[in-house]
Amino acid sequence: MALDPLGSALTGPLFATAAMREVFSDGACVVAMLRVEAALARVQARVGLAPEPLAPAIEAIDPARFDAAALGAETALAGVPVIPFVKALQRLLPPELEPHVHKGATSQDIADTALALMQRDALSLLAADGSAVLAGLSALAARHRGEACAGRSYGQQAAPVTFGFKVAVWAAGIAEVLARLPEIRGRACAVSLGGPVGTLAGLGDKGPAVADALADELGLASSPIAWHVRRARVAETGAWLATLLGALAKLSVDVVDLASTEVGEVAEPHVAGRGGSSAMPHKRNPIAATVILAAAGAAKGHVATLLESMAAGHERPAGAWQAEWLALPPLFGLASGALAEARRLAEGLVVDRARLAANLGATRGLLFADAAAARLATSLGRAAAHATVERAAARVRSDGTTLAAALAADAAAEGIDLAPAFDLAPAVAAAQPWIDRALAEVARVRALLA
Amino acid sequence: MALDPLGSALTGPLFATAAMREVFSDGACVVAMLRVEAALARVQARVGLAPEPLAPAIEAIDPARFDAAALGAETALAGVPVIPFVKALQRLLPPELEPHVHKGATSQDIADTALALMQRDALSLLAADGSAVLAGLSALAARHRGEACAGRSYGQQAAPVTFGFKVAVWAAGIAEVLARLPEIRGRACAVSLGGPVGTLAGLGDKGPAVADALADELGLASSPIAWHVRRARVAETGAWLATLLGALAKLSVDVVDLASTEVGEVAEPHVAGRGGSSAMPHKRNPIAATVILAAAGAAKGHVATLLESMAAGHERPAGAWQAEWLALPPLFGLASGALAEARRLAEGLVVDRARLAANLGATRGLLFADAAAARLATSLGRAAAHATVERAAARVRSDGTTLAAALAADAAAEGIDLAPAFDLAPAVAAAQPWIDRALAEVARVRALLA
Amino acid sequence: MALDPLGSALTGPLFATAAMREVFSDGACVVAMLRVEAALARVQARVGLAPEPLAPAIEAIDPARFDAAALGAETALAGVPVIPFVKALQRLLPPELEPHVHKGATSQDIADTALALMQRDALSLLAADGSAVLAGLSALAARHRGEACAGRSYGQQAAPVTFGFKVAVWAAGIAEVLARLPEIRGRACAVSLGGPVGTLAGLGDKGPAVADALADELGLASSPIAWHVRRARVAETGAWLATLLGALAKLSVDVVDLASTEVGEVAEPHVAGRGGSSAMPHKRNPIAATVILAAAGAAKGHVATLLESMAAGHERPAGAWQAEWLALPPLFGLASGALAEARRLAEGLVVDRARLAANLGATRGLLFADAAAARLATSLGRAAAHATVERAAARVRSDGTTLAAALAADAAAEGIDLAPAFDLAPAVAAAQPWIDRALAEVARVRALLA
Amino acid sequence: MALDPLGSALTGPLFATAAMREVFSDGACVVAMLRVEAALARVQARVGLAPEPLAPAIEAIDPARFDAAALGAETALAGVPVIPFVKALQRLLPPELEPHVHKGATSQDIADTALALMQRDALSLLAADGSAVLAGLSALAARHRGEACAGRSYGQQAAPVTFGFKVAVWAAGIAEVLARLPEIRGRACAVSLGGPVGTLAGLGDKGPAVADALADELGLASSPIAWHVRRARVAETGAWLATLLGALAKLSVDVVDLASTEVGEVAEPHVAGRGGSSAMPHKRNPIAATVILAAAGAAKGHVATLLESMAAGHERPAGAWQAEWLALPPLFGLASGALAEARRLAEGLVVDRARLAANLGATRGLLFADAAAARLATSLGRAAAHATVERAAARVRSDGTTLAAALAADAAAEGIDLAPAFDLAPAVAAAQPWIDRALAEVARVRALLA
Repeated sequence: MALDPLGSALTGPLFATAAMREVFSDGACVVAMLRVEAALARVQARVGLAPEPLAPAIEAIDPARFDAAALGAETALAGVPVIPFVKALQRLLPPELEPHVHKGATSQDIADTALALMQRDALSLLAADGSAVLAGLSALAARHRGEACAGRSYGQQAAPVTFGFKVAVWAAGIAEVLARLPEIRGRACAVSLGGPVGTLAGLGDKGPAVADALADELGLASSPIAWHVRRARVAETGAWLATLLGALAKLSVDVVDLASTEVGEVAEPHVAGRGGSSAMPHKRNPIAATVILAAAGAAKGHVATLLESMAAGHERPAGAWQAEWLALPPLFGLASGALAEARRLAEGLVVDRARLAANLGATRGLLFADAAAARLATSLGRAAAHATVERAAARVRSDGTTLAAALAADAAAEGIDLAPAFDLAPAVAAAQPWIDRALAEVARVRALLA
Repeated sequence: MALDPLGSALTGPLFATAAMREVFSDGACVVAMLRVEAALARVQARVGLAPEPLAPAIEAIDPARFDAAALGAETALAGVPVIPFVKALQRLLPPELEPHVHKGATSQDIADTALALMQRDALSLLAADGSAVLAGLSALAARHRGEACAGRSYGQQAAPVTFGFKVAVWAAGIAEVLARLPEIRGRACAVSLGGPVGTLAGLGDKGPAVADALADELGLASSPIAWHVRRARVAETGAWLATLLGALAKLSVDVVDLASTEVGEVAEPHVAGRGGSSAMPHKRNPIAATVILAAAGAAKGHVATLLESMAAGHERPAGAWQAEWLALPPLFGLASGALAEARRLAEGLVVDRARLAANLGATRGLLFADAAAARLATSLGRAAAHATVERAAARVRSDGTTLAAALAADAAAEGIDLAPAFDLAPAVAAAQPWIDRALAEVARVRALLA
Repeated sequence: MALDPLGSALTGPLFATAAMREVFSDGACVVAMLRVEAALARVQARVGLAPEPLAPAIEAIDPARFDAAALGAETALAGVPVIPFVKALQRLLPPELEPHVHKGATSQDIADTALALMQRDALSLLAADGSAVLAGLSALAARHRGEACAGRSYGQQAAPVTFGFKVAVWAAGIAEVLARLPEIRGRACAVSLGGPVGTLAGLGDKGPAVADALADELGLASSPIAWHVRRARVAETGAWLATLLGALAKLSVDVVDLASTEVGEVAEPHVAGRGGSSAMPHKRNPIAATVILAAAGAAKGHVATLLESMAAGHERPAGAWQAEWLALPPLFGLASGALAEARRLAEGLVVDRARLAANLGATRGLLFADAAAARLATSLGRAAAHATVERAAARVRSDGTTLAAALAADAAAEGIDLAPAFDLAPAVAAAQPWIDRALAEVARVRALLA
Repeated sequence: MALDPLGSALTGPLFATAAMREVFSDGACVVAMLRVEAALARVQARVGLAPEPLAPAIEAIDPARFDAAALGAETALAGVPVIPFVKALQRLLPPELEPHVHKGATSQDIADTALALMQRDALSLLAADGSAVLAGLSALAARHRGEACAGRSYGQQAAPVTFGFKVAVWAAGIAEVLARLPEIRGRACAVSLGGPVGTLAGLGDKGPAVADALADELGLASSPIAWHVRRARVAETGAWLATLLGALAKLSVDVVDLASTEVGEVAEPHVAGRGGSSAMPHKRNPIAATVILAAAGAAKGHVATLLESMAAGHERPAGAWQAEWLALPPLFGLASGALAEARRLAEGLVVDRARLAANLGATRGLLFADAAAARLATSLGRAAAHATVERAAARVRSDGTTLAAALAADAAAEGIDLAPAFDLAPAVAAAQPWIDRALAEVARVRALLA
């Protein structure tokens, strides 16, 4: 209920981690912009475009001397925070150095490069939490790899799997997104230095060399040509963050359902003060999953904003760039909070083995219908087998009998040994190699993130 | 580049008004929740469900005694700020009153009703600024109602209109959205009081009476049945805010183009410090339009979030409700900033009459092709007339002649008096009744907003 | 898996009704455009702007004479189907009438007015199916109004409600959206007649009169000024359709969960051939809810498209208008299919009373924790009562005892009669007035739709 | 105005290529499903799980024997087209082979694998058209690499660039998206074979081997574990298609503006019948750009749908999977049409050199303000230089003088040689290395697409 749900004292801690809030704080933004201007001065000094003392002078400035509120008031006029920032920076420099700062650059160069630095920090946070999530899920999958439980489709019990298999699917789903983090970082963390219209004409024939040197200096990627209005990387990063939230949402919808009263197979790890209700003292609400689902719900809209902003007119658009500020940092914030909650789940999910087992009996054998039909099919053909099992299933539902009994009583199934179809062992066995494959892949991804 | 672009000291003032930031501040949220609990106590006291002194005791509490940071830390556990808020409230009440607070209610009741109060304030701000925008545009349309200018389709000059007509279309477009504000307020500003599962069972047979009395007490609408998981009103409000931003975006894309160097028909009002560039001292960037377009760009994603949140499971969902917090207040913030900028445009747009006139000549008469074709059609038939004008238009483009001359030289047009087709007066005259109709409608809407 | 999922022979019938597919078919589009041109001719004839025989001549043309494939090939060049349509129409008219057709109009006038006619038919279909859904749900709510069942929040049993109460919330949620259908129709079903740039200058001083007469002739609303680039009504209609789908999605997420194996409180009505699986003969998948949820999932994106299209430049934009064609008709299609499926649910949902009752016992009394805490609070104060119940709830979970027993054994609760807290009757009673209120409101809305 | 805008005879050809319409036609879908079943039979035969003659028997079936309308009618019941497809397939096989078809598989396996095959064809089409777009733009950039023109920011002339530089930015923007096509193909074109719950238990211990062999047989990727409910690849493909449309939209917004009457620097290639108006015979509307912008407008919504569908419950969700069918194929369709139109632009854009040059004079020198300020700054310091140029710029606007004259008359600039600042040569020179770098990168990407 705050204008700034991720920044609000009241709701911010619910949705984003303190570390990510810090990465995208006003103070960190000023620090990043200062760092870009200093690096620019340093590489320009090397080629004689700026005086040697400029870079050290910039680096000597205490970022706290920038007054965010004052900069904000001017930003409301200027449209871009870099404009008042550069003015303030000039005021803090000795008169003989001031003319040389920000040479050849445009506001967007500083803002985009500062954003690249902030994103690098942000991606490091996500890599660390992401890796922990994968580690937690891998251990969880390994621990329950042989624990049979109901597989479900369309909300209904379908056939047995193991709990470890379910967890391995979650882990693989998150891992396949995190596997792309390095390439995302490679494209998102790029220097922008193009000057007013992208040609960096203010630096004469030294433009490309300075731009590439700035990239080296800051440890960022360089670009063949300005990306002021070539925003695929921004949209791609946003979409990637949303797929990360999507993969976490998959885990979360499952957790909410598995933790429901009637299923009861898992509970979120108990944390004092968590999951209660103002009205209902007995509740153990799945708050971690709730936070993740809320974040995933809000993510896709931000992606739409970033995609729309790709249609950036000429050398700088009116509005499309600013719209990115409303979408990309919030996506990082949402991802941070969701990963932190996912980590709690991965590391602490409580599995109720008794309920796993009990629920396997809930259908009185219908869970094995697929296996029974498969056995029948080899004698009766697929269609007849399917029809036979459908007939028996109807009796299970109407009479309360078991599928095994109903089939035993069915003339069509006479003489066919169906006992193996009701054995959990094959289902458990079938799950094992997939778990191995998935966990190997997860381990590979974790190595990428290290 | 802040996690909370609307709350950040650096970028918040660019995107949202100070007044709207205040309406959806953490402090205002606490005040609103307190007000709801006090009103609930008051109406419960009337029917004997709460002690008389409870409401005054709640009202006597200084909202500053709630520590937003402490509440936020607990919210991160509880999932809902109301839970720590109610606990804190209980600690601030005398022991004999404390048991009676929040009776029968659930967290969502307090949060949603507080949100209704905040939305009422927010809508008042939008109504006032919206009315000012309409007033400004009405005056602008009236001032330029007879000033001919180029009408354009697909980016190309099409046929003459008047500048006042263009403004009247803008005004009518914004007015038709604002006309819905009262009905939006009627649905959005509704009490929620349903208790844990919507039946308000904790109040025995007094539930509906207390809920309706609470609505009266707070000046909010009541509901036939709980709207905990009936969220059309939330999605509708969000979609309405986005259509408001859409109507303002229409004005803004036109302003950006009209203010472009080559068109040059308007300039944003000059404000010291606004529209400059860190690199280009001569720039007069259309910052008001830029802010509006950025806001409109970000709005549609939030609507998607709210629409998705309608699929709210059972009596309270896990995630869908919290996702609303990430979308609805930001929409109000974006609307506030965009309306404030639109007001600047409506009240101060600088129109360059000389450029309006000069641009009418840019096509050497092609702008009158439709009128010429219409005159030819009465003699030649539509198809032949169309073909004749196409032929002449090709000559205008290739030879640099005028359309009038090219048609005069075309045998097909021989003997047909085309002079009236090149007269601006009919185009100007045709625009007038539409302007009158539009401005009358705008005045009607302004009366609704008063 | 088709480029045109709503039109494909394979998947179209899954997602849209045959009636709605017909309303937005190519043939119906041609018929609607013909009807607009004929009505335009008729009202122009009345004021001397067109020959009397023109309108009858247009009406006499067999729509089948228009070759959709040929028109489509030309549309790919022209960008708008109206351009080849008008050319084809001219070829089908006698030479003396041909020059007078389409007088003063622009392509968008014909397309938008034809769309208004198609929308009117489409809204009638939705009103009829919507009313049937409300009727079905009202009867269902009435039938089960006293049947206690678990209310659930965050996926967990919270406190008892009745099944009829749940249904009443569904019905009220759908009704509040459908209540807006008449106003939506009033704005969406409007004539567009503005000519190339909106001033209808081609009709001299008769423009407004002809436009208003055309509206009368077609039974559509008129507009104070052209809505070529004032698209709030389009975005509003789209958003409304999405909220309708959202309200149906709420019903559907509940049905999927209630129909799940472990909850088992409802089943979708049995239809031969529905809900089976290619692999699992026993499955009864909730296909109606599945179709609705898929439709709701796809709806919000289309709304984003329509909102973005509001930023329509000058007198006709390049792209924004065409983007609407990609979004609005599909929304009508999705709504039609979803309402048809909702009708099946409303009229045929199978409720398993035994499971409703059985599930009430699943928590061994925790479902009554709120009521127990409320009773304790009057003696102990809210905080102590809450803590006492939390303590007892923990024992229920760990020891398998009941909440009643756990509280009876707790010193804090000594001497407090908690038996009434475990009585279902108050919960059932509390639900009744809300059901009455909701069903009265639903009946009011059904009257609006008649 | 059709329910199926991409499939409609009337509007389909406007938005999608015939080739892409064929790839995602109902017929192609049946062929793809048949191919999957045949390949499954073949690899199962190799390991003794299916009779040898089954695969040839499936391959011998004429796909035309499947009646799409009949399958569609059953799909409306079954919820998935694969269910009636498999039944129909069984009827077309000899009785002794029928029981062995579709062994171990679930509907989603067939549908997803068929989709992978269709996507492979679709991506080949996009690669070919994309490569042609890049080739066309490379030639265009090379042709105009030295042609000075105005660079523009916020709609206003900012500083000179060259037309070739602008084109190089377009090309690099499209190339950076197309560069990801191979990795997108690698992930999207993957076999799905998991059986009802993902473990492929129906194949005993041969599951993983069969799944991997099926991937080999079809030339698709294999997966470590089922991706039934691990949908990052689907969302990623959709997001990638939307970024492709975004990169094309960037080109298109520029073309619309550059082709506008007042700018007039380019025209879309002339195609008979294209770009006209039903009312205005002289119009040359930029229809290619219009189609692209409409497609990009509609794309982002589909991405939101796919992102939401990632939250897929348990082993198969109710609705999320079906929602993908409503979003992914349309994205391929929109991308195909947009690329085809972009190819027309890339290969045929008409550049008006005279207008490029004339527009450079439109600001009476303000375009060189940045260069002038830079020269002044070395003497005066940045702030004073900026102020001096702002002062002179104000005189240019108010008095109609040139910037050179205004600066010459300004005391602050006395003695500073500003003539070089008004020279276009440095701006042209500065653009050259960036063009080289961009075109080299574009060539690299074209090689990837070959």
